[in-house]
Amino acid sequence: MKKWLFILLTIGSTAAVAQTPDLMPLPAHYTLSSNPYRISRTFSIEVQGEADPRMYREASRFFQRLSERTGIFFKTWLVNATSRINESGLLIKVQRKGKVELGDDESYQLQVTSSGIQLNAVTDIGAIRGLETLIQLIGSDANGYFFHGITIDDRPRFSWRGLLISQPYHFMTMDVIKRTLDAMAAVKMNVLHFYISDDQGYRIESKVFPRLHELASDGMYFTYEQVKEMLDYAHQRGIRVVPEIDVPGHSTAIIYAYPHLASVKREYTLQDHWGVFDPTLDPTKETTYTFLDSLLTEVASLFPDRYFHIGGDENTGRDWKRNPEIQSFMKAKGLNTTLALQNYFNKRVRGILEKNGKTAVGWDEVLMKEINDSTAKKYFEEGRYDQLIETAVPKDMVIQSWRGMEALLSSAKNGYKSILSKGYYIDLVQPASYHYLNDPIPFRNEVIIPDSEANFNRFESNIVEKIKKGERLLSENEEKLILGGEATMWTEHVTTETMDSRIWPRTGVIAERLWSPPHVRDVDDMYRRMDILSIQLEALGCTHIKNRDMMLRRLTGMQDVHALANVVQFLEPVQGYQRNKLNNFTRFSPYTLTVDIAAPDQKEVRDLKQKFQQFRQRTDTAWKQEARELFYSWIANDRIVQDIAKRTPALADLAQHSAHLSKLAISSLRVLNASPASFASEKKEWMTTADGVKKPIGHCELKAGEAIRDVISSLSLQ
Amino acid sequence: MKKWLFILLTIGSTAAVAQTPDLMPLPAHYTLSSNPYRISRTFSIEVQGEADPRMYREASRFFQRLSERTGIFFKTWLVNATSRINESGLLIKVQRKGKVELGDDESYQLQVTSSGIQLNAVTDIGAIRGLETLIQLIGSDANGYFFHGITIDDRPRFSWRGLLISQPYHFMTMDVIKRTLDAMAAVKMNVLHFYISDDQGYRIESKVFPRLHELASDGMYFTYEQVKEMLDYAHQRGIRVVPEIDVPGHSTAIIYAYPHLASVKREYTLQDHWGVFDPTLDPTKETTYTFLDSLLTEVASLFPDRYFHIGGDENTGRDWKRNPEIQSFMKAKGLNTTLALQNYFNKRVRGILEKNGKTAVGWDEVLMKEINDSTAKKYFEEGRYDQLIETAVPKDMVIQSWRGMEALLSSAKNGYKSILSKGYYIDLVQPASYHYLNDPIPFRNEVIIPDSEANFNRFESNIVEKIKKGERLLSENEEKLILGGEATMWTEHVTTETMDSRIWPRTGVIAERLWSPPHVRDVDDMYRRMDILSIQLEALGCTHIKNRDMMLRRLTGMQDVHALANVVQFLEPVQGYQRNKLNNFTRFSPYTLTVDIAAPDQKEVRDLKQKFQQFRQRTDTAWKQEARELFYSWIANDRIVQDIAKRTPALADLAQHSAHLSKLAISSLRVLNASPASFASEKKEWMTTADGVKKPIGHCELKAGEAIRDVISSLSLQ
Repeated sequence: MKKWLFILLTIGSTAAVAQTPDLMPLPAHYTLSSNPYRISRTFSIEVQGEADPRMYREASRFFQRLSERTGIFFKTWLVNATSRINESGLLIKVQRKGKVELGDDESYQLQVTSSGIQLNAVTDIGAIRGLETLIQLIGSDANGYFFHGITIDDRPRFSWRGLLISQPYHFMTMDVIKRTLDAMAAVKMNVLHFYISDDQGYRIESKVFPRLHELASDGMYFTYEQVKEMLDYAHQRGIRVVPEIDVPGHSTAIIYAYPHLASVKREYTLQDHWGVFDPTLDPTKETTYTFLDSLLTEVASLFPDRYFHIGGDENTGRDWKRNPEIQSFMKAKGLNTTLALQNYFNKRVRGILEKNGKTAVGWDEVLMKEINDSTAKKYFEEGRYDQLIETAVPKDMVIQSWRGMEALLSSAKNGYKSILSKGYYIDLVQPASYHYLNDPIPFRNEVIIPDSEANFNRFESNIVEKIKKGERLLSENEEKLILGGEATMWTEHVTTETMDSRIWPRTGVIAERLWSPPHVRDVDDMYRRMDILSIQLEALGCTHIKNRDMMLRRLTGMQDVHALANVVQFLEPVQGYQRNKLNNFTRFSPYTLTVDIAAPDQKEVRDLKQKFQQFRQRTDTAWKQEARELFYSWIANDRIVQDIAKRTPALADLAQHSAHLSKLAISSLRVLNASPASFASEKKEWMTTADGVKKPIGHCELKAGEAIRDVISSLSLQ
Repeated sequence: MKKWLFILLTIGSTAAVAQTPDLMPLPAHYTLSSNPYRISRTFSIEVQGEADPRMYREASRFFQRLSERTGIFFKTWLVNATSRINESGLLIKVQRKGKVELGDDESYQLQVTSSGIQLNAVTDIGAIRGLETLIQLIGSDANGYFFHGITIDDRPRFSWRGLLISQPYHFMTMDVIKRTLDAMAAVKMNVLHFYISDDQGYRIESKVFPRLHELASDGMYFTYEQVKEMLDYAHQRGIRVVPEIDVPGHSTAIIYAYPHLASVKREYTLQDHWGVFDPTLDPTKETTYTFLDSLLTEVASLFPDRYFHIGGDENTGRDWKRNPEIQSFMKAKGLNTTLALQNYFNKRVRGILEKNGKTAVGWDEVLMKEINDSTAKKYFEEGRYDQLIETAVPKDMVIQSWRGMEALLSSAKNGYKSILSKGYYIDLVQPASYHYLNDPIPFRNEVIIPDSEANFNRFESNIVEKIKKGERLLSENEEKLILGGEATMWTEHVTTETMDSRIWPRTGVIAERLWSPPHVRDVDDMYRRMDILSIQLEALGCTHIKNRDMMLRRLTGMQDVHALANVVQFLEPVQGYQRNKLNNFTRFSPYTLTVDIAAPDQKEVRDLKQKFQQFRQRTDTAWKQEARELFYSWIANDRIVQDIAKRTPALADLAQHSAHLSKLAISSLRVLNASPASFASEKKEWMTTADGVKKPIGHCELKAGEAIRDVISSLSLQ
């Protein structure tokens, strides 16, 4: 029996259309040439100028990757200060050692010609960014490998281009963190936001308060040495690591280890479930600050970055209200709201950080006033941004906006440095295009695609109106306060096996949004380049592609899972927080099922859509036979899937989706084969079928119907 | 365009034939029943008796794996001393804490019935072995998941069942070591032989001699903390870790860091290439022993196991001959040969180990006399085993035999404990069946398949004769000295990406050889069970299946590599040391090419062979059409491959093999379609073609022709 797959072949089909080089992120300025540099065994690298030792290690790593991609046995492979170019090769010139800190120069100029390659940069960090560009320029033909001819003058648009990884939910091991750092470096991201503490666990060693890792980690934490290992790895790639200890809420783990810090006396245990919980540090006791002084000083000493995140989000306030002593304290101090008390707490915490030479970062709650929505909306519409926030908070605090543009705008309007995360929540498995068009400084007259979670968008419509009218939201100086953004990978619903498919390749387009000029926003071209990037990220160890079939093999015990893969390729997890609404998920749940094997924004769905759009443009009708064969293959595939699923209960969701795909195929064939008499009713029936089969089953959606809907609905009798 | 794969479907085709349960290794005694235990959400585990805390962690890990495989959301998930069975579940009874040391009790009894599961063991290590059996007993049907009904009484045949990983060539990171330990535990192996030092590097931190890791590691080493992390991980799985510091040869790394230890003064640098090199410690200087005293004491303190490997192999002796002072020393001491001097050295080293409470292990050179082959052969044939070895070596030394049976036999005959590695060199990419039939105590009248490397087999023919005659090679007491065996993964030609496909699943059959009774040696059934095991190993993180397509994607930059995979599935790396004979391979070479993507003993080759054997047994001729379609698909596939390879020079080898596959298909079709007049000549032509296409290209061989040769050659006109 022959096997078959019905993924559509798109090799080379879009290459001719492309006007941009195969780079992600796209450089600020570039000029393509038809003058490639051909790579030979004698290729060599020389570094001139005062570079950090990191530069030589990265140049050696570049050599290794180049060898792996091309199969060339190079004569030399290690680059050090004495390395010289033999005949021709890559000459790197740097002016000074880069500092892995906010705002240091990351610009570079790269010129590739047939006679050689020159990479110039102010700092070695800039040169390292340039190396990542260069490795994306590898091409090949019958005569061998080459770097495409190009002249590039590149620099980032924003200085803070981050990715948050939360460790308390599903713990990510060192190898996961390392491959993530490799992939971040590949797309020129420069901040790993390392989220350490939450209700579910505390994830680094504490020598000062060892119960934190001994008791509140379930054995899953980074030791001092491992923290250093991670920092060294990031440092070599010019990536900062910003730690976060989330207080005063999200603190069950800390309280479980040290119950005297709690606002309410009760039995504490680590949370197994996901959500927002009440346990909160007691902000009225001096012992709390003594504790935090020691703890934050310890953590600050481990992480060299100037910035230190103290969380401050989602304090329910309920435990403070439950404790009469805290209520009395508030009255005595004239603190009328939970937020006022939290501001008092924040001030004390900031003091500790200042003593350690650190600048605090907080989620937008640390700044926003606790006022009701209608009042807030009124202030916002009237432009009274100062009324929305606690302007007493010192201006050197950095605000991370996760709730929406109103927070970002208000903080910038009031002189606070800000980074945007709203719209970059990659754990919500939304399409890359959504994240891509979400700009920290909204672009020209274009409108942001609204988020599906209405509660995070109370001011969004207002902003959209302003943008539509072409109004500038921020002054030039205010715009400078927007430092950049951060993609966030909250790890409730991912494991070490599935996280990569939720981060990559989509986060590559966020990296481009934060690096490339604002006018770079062609969605089709973005997808073309993202798919190329995806393979390059896999070569760095990311498992976003290869784990799909592995997980299908685990569920079936079979080596050959192509029939199942044929269905999964059209399945995407339900977007947003749907899965959080169920209470049965914990760290120990099986994250190995259909929804976990499915991935957001599937390439194959986009390919299917593109294929049908090409059909639509055809003047002949031969495409109908091609389409029929595709639909027949879906039906045949379903028979295999049902046979496997029959004895594999864990595939129940997948089997239903497969049956739906078959149903869609049958309905599609009926439309294609319809007589003039039945055509209209078959088309109507198709719409009903398509609506039916797209409904979520097992937290994922079959996207095949939507991909071909336009074409089917535009069909007419010929 | 539809995609297709031409791998043969064999799902369920062999299941009916099987008489054995789907277990690897097979238990010593078992009785199958048709009384399965059905798994529900309320499944629970209780541990009775005095168990090491390791038992609870392993039971919890079992729970997690069960959940991942079945998708069941269990009500409980963490097993501890207070865990009790709810309704029904798994009751584990252990008598005492196991000791992770040679020879502790690993036996267990397992009973699975519809009313519950009982696992009894003397030690918790035995119970952990039983858990690995139980997880292999998962089955499923339309009603859900179950454990197959069975009664098992199991214990290992040998007490030393090891795997050697060499760290100096290609360094294996912590995640690789951990997944290897997981896989070893799955097949009940109990020794990780951790090979630390060689000419290419020294791979653990030394606080006593820090230049070892600072200078002689290229930055690739395990810190103290990482060594402990590895040991803890192994300890939880009941796996010993035996360190090896190879002296006095294979010591360039040590000498590079501390040149005063060298036998010859010269410029030393780490070896980048593979092979046997001259640099050797100077055995005549007291400073050498002072150094080794400190170093071995340090390493001995890190690794708690009683056994410590000191290497002793492949000392070329040349550097000792080059140094007149060493020659004078030998004369003065009456040491006439290199080996005599090495024995003097070994004695001193053993003294250091004894002081640390350690027993030395050495490669067979530490025992074998340096006598010429003909004399040795004479002694061997005459049964004068004492003449072959240095009987002065203390009897508590363990001999690891890598050169052949003569060493193993001689050492056992003279009262030395021995472990066999000859025949378990998995880095030589030989078929699983070869390793499987290689028994540390040769079985009955069966003959060992001779190794292709004649120089390691000078006595093999002699032994084969004895076995053929049914002579017992060792007495019962001598047999008891054979402790077991070790598979060896020398990492010259593997990277972290490819090592798994060289270890797994083949090492599973070595594990079975060392665990299961000697009469368990049905090769067909072994392969059936090995293929099932392979998927289970992948679920533990092993990359032996999923990295194939990843590596093809890296070389092509394409998501869809099925046409390439269709060829690679029939390609196996050339067996033995062929690749070592070329001098162009180093740690930095591209181990990403066709030979690295290919894997030993491909399942698809075996499936193809099986398919054609089934054809042969058919009485109708309809199979010919099936065969024709297969051959057509090979030809069509080649067109796609050539198109891709045209612009991908790194695929040159693969393209040639693909062309050969197409050529073989054309020739096969000509045989199938031959007229009576041309039949004989087409068959003859086929043989020439098949001989031609099996020749190695790029260090790998196309196996498709051999798989179908029997059937084609037995074809007759009908």
